[in-house]
Amino acid sequence: MKKIKSKYELFRQKTQIILYGTNTFLGRLFDLVLLGLILLSVLLVMMDTVEGINHKYHSYLIICEWIITVFFTIEYILRIISIQKPVKYVFSFYGIIDLMAILPMYLSIFFPATNVLTIVRILRFFRLFKILHIPQISQQSLQLREAMQASKEKILVFIYFVLISAVIIGSLMYVVEGKESGFTSIPVGIYWAIVTLTTVGYGDISPASPLGQFLASLVMIMGYGIIAVPTGIVTAEFAKSSLRNNAVSTKKMCQNCNAQLHFDSAKYCHECGTELLNN
Amino acid sequence: MKKIKSKYELFRQKTQIILYGTNTFLGRLFDLVLLGLILLSVLLVMMDTVEGINHKYHSYLIICEWIITVFFTIEYILRIISIQKPVKYVFSFYGIIDLMAILPMYLSIFFPATNVLTIVRILRFFRLFKILHIPQISQQSLQLREAMQASKEKILVFIYFVLISAVIIGSLMYVVEGKESGFTSIPVGIYWAIVTLTTVGYGDISPASPLGQFLASLVMIMGYGIIAVPTGIVTAEFAKSSLRNNAVSTKKMCQNCNAQLHFDSAKYCHECGTELLNN
Amino acid sequence: MKKIKSKYELFRQKTQIILYGTNTFLGRLFDLVLLGLILLSVLLVMMDTVEGINHKYHSYLIICEWIITVFFTIEYILRIISIQKPVKYVFSFYGIIDLMAILPMYLSIFFPATNVLTIVRILRFFRLFKILHIPQISQQSLQLREAMQASKEKILVFIYFVLISAVIIGSLMYVVEGKESGFTSIPVGIYWAIVTLTTVGYGDISPASPLGQFLASLVMIMGYGIIAVPTGIVTAEFAKSSLRNNAVSTKKMCQNCNAQLHFDSAKYCHECGTELLNN
Amino acid sequence: MKKIKSKYELFRQKTQIILYGTNTFLGRLFDLVLLGLILLSVLLVMMDTVEGINHKYHSYLIICEWIITVFFTIEYILRIISIQKPVKYVFSFYGIIDLMAILPMYLSIFFPATNVLTIVRILRFFRLFKILHIPQISQQSLQLREAMQASKEKILVFIYFVLISAVIIGSLMYVVEGKESGFTSIPVGIYWAIVTLTTVGYGDISPASPLGQFLASLVMIMGYGIIAVPTGIVTAEFAKSSLRNNAVSTKKMCQNCNAQLHFDSAKYCHECGTELLNN
Repeated sequence: MKKIKSKYELFRQKTQIILYGTNTFLGRLFDLVLLGLILLSVLLVMMDTVEGINHKYHSYLIICEWIITVFFTIEYILRIISIQKPVKYVFSFYGIIDLMAILPMYLSIFFPATNVLTIVRILRFFRLFKILHIPQISQQSLQLREAMQASKEKILVFIYFVLISAVIIGSLMYVVEGKESGFTSIPVGIYWAIVTLTTVGYGDISPASPLGQFLASLVMIMGYGIIAVPTGIVTAEFAKSSLRNNAVSTKKMCQNCNAQLHFDSAKYCHECGTELLNN
Repeated sequence: MKKIKSKYELFRQKTQIILYGTNTFLGRLFDLVLLGLILLSVLLVMMDTVEGINHKYHSYLIICEWIITVFFTIEYILRIISIQKPVKYVFSFYGIIDLMAILPMYLSIFFPATNVLTIVRILRFFRLFKILHIPQISQQSLQLREAMQASKEKILVFIYFVLISAVIIGSLMYVVEGKESGFTSIPVGIYWAIVTLTTVGYGDISPASPLGQFLASLVMIMGYGIIAVPTGIVTAEFAKSSLRNNAVSTKKMCQNCNAQLHFDSAKYCHECGTELLNN
Repeated sequence: MKKIKSKYELFRQKTQIILYGTNTFLGRLFDLVLLGLILLSVLLVMMDTVEGINHKYHSYLIICEWIITVFFTIEYILRIISIQKPVKYVFSFYGIIDLMAILPMYLSIFFPATNVLTIVRILRFFRLFKILHIPQISQQSLQLREAMQASKEKILVFIYFVLISAVIIGSLMYVVEGKESGFTSIPVGIYWAIVTLTTVGYGDISPASPLGQFLASLVMIMGYGIIAVPTGIVTAEFAKSSLRNNAVSTKKMCQNCNAQLHFDSAKYCHECGTELLNN
Repeated sequence: MKKIKSKYELFRQKTQIILYGTNTFLGRLFDLVLLGLILLSVLLVMMDTVEGINHKYHSYLIICEWIITVFFTIEYILRIISIQKPVKYVFSFYGIIDLMAILPMYLSIFFPATNVLTIVRILRFFRLFKILHIPQISQQSLQLREAMQASKEKILVFIYFVLISAVIIGSLMYVVEGKESGFTSIPVGIYWAIVTLTTVGYGDISPASPLGQFLASLVMIMGYGIIAVPTGIVTAEFAKSSLRNNAVSTKKMCQNCNAQLHFDSAKYCHECGTELLNN
């Protein structure tokens, strides 16, 4: 009995290393195969929505989707079994994604077309760089995340003010333009204001009256200055973080002449030639 | 008589603290309830303009709007009564907004559909962060405002030159394209030029002739370089303000001459040479 | 005879001061009246192209335009007479504009509708800030011009490469999409490429085939990275120029301890407290 | 026999200098004539696709194209003959372009309309600045390339995350909007997501349902913050490279240890402490 349990325990541990780990050869291989299968399943679902392909190959695509779903179901069960704290996994980000990626397929037996939602499993690709173990890219994406993290609050405050402006502008344009030129309600007006302020400009709704066009011009010029703000925030953050990582140390001071601003790698003072002690 | 007056005075003071203050529990609660009601009334007005909802629930929505308007009218009167300088409040930014937010509803008895203008009361939301007392966000929005304040003049000068260019470009396109492709007049041409230079590009008006498309290409490439300018201005301002907060300490003040803005590492005042104590 | 000449000379000098100078009260007043008249004439020409106004008031507008044109003709002649080197003025930037602003009106007798070209006189507005003598704004516009001047070459090199890319992309899309979806010729394809790369996106021409949409997506993502380049160039230039004007002098070194990086206004070394000699 | 060979060798060498070199007068002249002919041939191909011109002048244009193609064929053969390592040239960037620029014309005998592909020879224009020998512009384009090189990895990581988001957004909009408003399949939804996130916004596909417009608004606001990221990356890189060229001198090399990158003001080498001579 004990032997069986320990054998099971061994299997559990091995499975865990393969499923969760990215350091062993097998663990990494499994992750890459998994990503390959995800890419395949996403492509299958995508192709299934294209009319021409759907008409001809629907049955083949559905069979492939079912095979992949069964594989992912087994993987999901193994993940729950093999880990020490299954509850924690189930409610983690990737745990929820894994469940959301297999559930719609089973639901599609009762509610057709819900299988499209399996596409959510592409979020697993966020881990690609961790699996590939490319230190350079990991560092770059860390810097990206840091700069965005640091500018998050400023951008949220900014978006808050943009949204209030969008409500005012949208209501004004609804009053000025009326239903003929597409401004059928205030929410549609707000939608138009956001389309304009972000400079996307679909043109599905656009002002037709002279006064509406004049107001729209003002909004666009306002948006002109406004689009500069998030860019300014993020750029300043990037510049700051890249200066921080810069080669010049502000803490390295010469003990002889008190000269500051040496390179991090400096061994001698560039002012008086004394060997720097605080290396 | 005096007692009544002092009782009234007490009521006036209490009302003032609740209506204008954000430091007491009641004052803050009142402000949050107010914002909630504003949000509700804005949503009501918005929904009333959506055809499907309007047909079914118009009478209910109007009743709700009237209840809220009566509440805001009482609030407006109380604000005037409770404050020492009522004239100053009436002509202040929020005083005008408060009046503009209740007047249209009463006007809508005589002129239907003007109740849409009550939406202007959403501007009260600009005060949200002050009410919430989140120091971090207050600071962020202060930095945002500072950077925009500092770049305001440069951006205005820039917009001035963009507008002159838009007039020239719009007239040129009117001459080149003519009425067939939507350039029905010079003002419309200027509207098109602004739509293009800001990279919004609705496509409601777009050049059809080869020469017009060639000129439009030039304008777009010009706009390419031009859109960089406000971004550059704001970014430089952000970078400057974040550098200022970085290397230079604003808290290091000389105890002798009150000179400010020393380096973080400064040991002696750069104005009078006194050794800085608050190291 | 001499007296007449000197009287004429006096008139010539006085006229020159009023027409060309901006330092005397009369000179400045004349410039402002001139700008007012230019604005009026530009508005007249603009209104004349709006169908509704044109039908009703065309004759009135034309009369006003003729009056203003006569005034500007007199001004042009006076400018030539009053200046010492009339040839230099005639071939200068503003000289050509002044001529271009009156000629079309006279030409419109023979060739109707050419009077639209008189709008070119709005370029005289470039001088507004010089006339208004606001030092702050003059400085801001100087900084703007400097930063744009400094980044001019980089942006031209950049646009050169963008244009080559646009030719390749436009030809490719012409081959892939064909005439059905609007790509009727390679020049039109290039026009589409520029519309897309600059993120204007009218939508008058847009890919309809799956392959075309895939290629267009690649172009847009490319344009994503590309639009960052001119912004980066201009911003770096702005940041550099604002750092140059910054308060920290890199040339101010303490003669006692060799400490660098003092404020421009510093009188004492912030490292050792010695009075700075190189003030 | 030897004399003939040496004569041939002389011819080979002379041809090589003219075809490949840009230092001799003839070499440079040849390059400029070549670029002129390329421009001519590109314009010919472009004009041939414009319907109006094609109908009238097709036969003339085809003759000109054939003459130019024969010239380029001779040039291609001479390039192979004159160089020492012909295989290296054939498989180099410009070797492949040169072949791709003449092959389509010969193929067009069997497959009409393939002659459009000869336009690829415009890529030869990338060498223009090298031929013109303008040091200032060479330096500018070097700086541009450096900054783009340095930000390449960050931008690729960024585009990777944008693409994953586009897949999710596109699928969601396909589910929400359905086929009526143009979202006919998930790939089309992804195409729409890219058109929106890059703020191009053609408007050929745009949401029509309230929920779709609400989601699109969220996507646009997201894209608002997102477009700031590549700009931030490139700008920080530009600023860094321009700062590097500023305070730090790349020309100050230690005569003792060859260490580079000293401050402009450095007097002693920061690597070995030797006094720097080239002050």
